[in-house]
Amino acid sequence: VGPGDDAAVVTTGSTTLVTTDSLVEGIHFRREWTSARRLGRKALSVNLSDIGGMGGRSLYATVSLCLPPDLEVAWLDGLYDGLLERAGECGLSIVGGNLSAIDGPIVIDVMVLGESARTLLRAGARSGDRIVVTGTLGAASGGLALLRAGLRLSDDDTVQDVSGGARFSPADQAILAEYLRAHLDPAPPIELGAALARVDGVHAGMDVSDGLSGDLLALCTESQVTGVIDAAAITPPAVADLDAWGGGGALERALHGGEDYGLLLAVEPRALDEVRALAAAHGVAIADIGLFAPGPAAVWLEREGRREALPPRAHQHFGPGTPRRA
Amino acid sequence: VGPGDDAAVVTTGSTTLVTTDSLVEGIHFRREWTSARRLGRKALSVNLSDIGGMGGRSLYATVSLCLPPDLEVAWLDGLYDGLLERAGECGLSIVGGNLSAIDGPIVIDVMVLGESARTLLRAGARSGDRIVVTGTLGAASGGLALLRAGLRLSDDDTVQDVSGGARFSPADQAILAEYLRAHLDPAPPIELGAALARVDGVHAGMDVSDGLSGDLLALCTESQVTGVIDAAAITPPAVADLDAWGGGGALERALHGGEDYGLLLAVEPRALDEVRALAAAHGVAIADIGLFAPGPAAVWLEREGRREALPPRAHQHFGPGTPRRA
Repeated sequence: VGPGDDAAVVTTGSTTLVTTDSLVEGIHFRREWTSARRLGRKALSVNLSDIGGMGGRSLYATVSLCLPPDLEVAWLDGLYDGLLERAGECGLSIVGGNLSAIDGPIVIDVMVLGESARTLLRAGARSGDRIVVTGTLGAASGGLALLRAGLRLSDDDTVQDVSGGARFSPADQAILAEYLRAHLDPAPPIELGAALARVDGVHAGMDVSDGLSGDLLALCTESQVTGVIDAAAITPPAVADLDAWGGGGALERALHGGEDYGLLLAVEPRALDEVRALAAAHGVAIADIGLFAPGPAAVWLEREGRREALPPRAHQHFGPGTPRRA
Repeated sequence: VGPGDDAAVVTTGSTTLVTTDSLVEGIHFRREWTSARRLGRKALSVNLSDIGGMGGRSLYATVSLCLPPDLEVAWLDGLYDGLLERAGECGLSIVGGNLSAIDGPIVIDVMVLGESARTLLRAGARSGDRIVVTGTLGAASGGLALLRAGLRLSDDDTVQDVSGGARFSPADQAILAEYLRAHLDPAPPIELGAALARVDGVHAGMDVSDGLSGDLLALCTESQVTGVIDAAAITPPAVADLDAWGGGGALERALHGGEDYGLLLAVEPRALDEVRALAAAHGVAIADIGLFAPGPAAVWLEREGRREALPPRAHQHFGPGTPRRA
């Protein structure tokens, strides 16, 4: 039973996964930076990433919208085009939701239900496991820097410079478009998480959404191990420097930039080949970037033979200026 | 698996019910009208009502919050006190959620998962069934009128008049508190829906949340029958006139006032006694207010021997001034 009754009625396996994530105008997106269609796709993708990070398969979604009354209906149509397009790509059904007026910014709150045979928890990483990530770390954060610098991505994937300048050469078009797309329309691996959860040697997993440094620390905390990242394993050739665009160095972005929506895994060395083969079969880039070691929950970066502490630098919704509980 | 991983992991019966409902500051509530605790209770209750209206039992909830950064932590604590208190009353677990900053009003988006042995759909009402409702129709709408007129309900249930006047006598305190509570902290029947779904003669059901006239029309539309309400069966003694408070007549409020959060049922006459006994066992007021008749989807009101059409008058989030799709 889909939309139209008081609640939707669905069937899942014995284990139901539940996640919810919001996109808030002014915080997570700006209307002048994205088409409504791309935003609809992203609103679903950020939740698909969480279900994939648990080793699950996404099945159903509800979409709860708060919309200012002067919003054009065409914008809402575009949003739903994107939601339905993305839902179709991963065999998910939108079974219900809610619609409310708001005297303020647009809020898109999506909840996704999934199922899993075996769940990938953050707890479970063992000393000796390899730190494995999928996707291109830092690309989404680079895309955000490009948007701030005045670049835009049209719906046919051409890059435009609305700052008035013409600061990039046609040769850079493809790579800039890739960064912008990583931010505006992220593509978390949809089926790989469920496939990896079936591999015995994959001990723990989560998605990378708040930046590698913070997410790896979260995994280390739940697993009570120390994570040691090898800088040389992430930097080249994964991401290029975007210094010229205010995007910072590639390593910086890869370590702390948010919204990567890849998988972060703890993999027993003997299972690495099987994990690599599964990633290849799903067309997903994968990298072995370090080691889980015995020790307290912490993350270290190894660079040119030296080991330094790597404190997290994730986005804070409620910063130091905000009154907090003692 | 509760909060702390990418998704919660829960177990439901073979049939999972999913519903979501939001409370938006400035649209559904004002901070000066309600304590955060009462608002937390209500945010859950409006969803419990939907699950109950499907004949289900509520099991799990996620809570997605958008909060302005200058909000006091004490307010958030109060909201969670209310959410957890209400969750405890109905044996529900809050398994996860999301937290985002917003440059605008507070948004509280709650999703509830439930399960049911048999679901009560809007489709299924048959000609000859009785129209049965629970609770006091119009009380919540009366409470809203009282809030607008300057009455407030303190957390110890005393009524105060902040308009400067002292316009009510101590004798009215109890009834005014009941109206205010109906709006601020509604008490939908939590377990009655699931009990009623097991009765063969209960053919259709939903919750009354947008006002009886509109909700009954929705049920008639899904069931392809005509609903005929007997005015004498709702007005006295269920709700008193609140004309003096700007609340309008009792019948008007009962027919069109929203947020009643009772059940609306189509019951075969021979099952009425069993339905009444179940309601009594659950301590829920119940009334037989009319008849489903053959005919097109429509609602009629019978008053003093005359039958008149009763068009819905539910709250419109997006009014006539808003551009709409053709």
